[in-house]
Amino acid sequence: MTAYTATVTVRLKHGVLDPEADQTRKALERLGFDLDGLRSADRFDIDLDADDARSARERADEMAERLLANPTIHDYDVDVVEAE
Amino acid sequence: MTAYTATVTVRLKHGVLDPEADQTRKALERLGFDLDGLRSADRFDIDLDADDARSARERADEMAERLLANPTIHDYDVDVVEAE
Repeated sequence: MTAYTATVTVRLKHGVLDPEADQTRKALERLGFDLDGLRSADRFDIDLDADDARSARERADEMAERLLANPTIHDYDVDVVEAE
Repeated sequence: MTAYTATVTVRLKHGVLDPEADQTRKALERLGFDLDGLRSADRFDIDLDADDARSARERADEMAERLLANPTIHDYDVDVVEAE
């Protein structure tokens, strides 16, 4: 077994309103920053032991599908690296 | 001017309690997943025009320091790429 860290990034699907990101953008603009867009996402770094990177990725995928992401409104991606 | 996307990742500093991440971990364990740790972070993808990548990074750094991160409890990092 090898120790891996799987990073799951959960974003709202294109077209789903994100009022929190809109407010953050407006607050930055009020502070004088000039920006063309802002999108927010939740990131989870998960430490897990697995036989190989592929099996670590499969488990992280399943965690995203069962709990971390809501498939109606979210897309997610998974990135796996060996833990340092 | 070139279009860049700056990704600001905001994490709780080591030692700061994260009850939401603890609950997420426990929920995954209740679903039968075996994991050694879970850390959560907020990620902001910011589109901005700048003369070069260095100036884009400086502006994203300043956004993190003034609004996106709370220096008492957060660390952050900034990653800049040319927008596609």
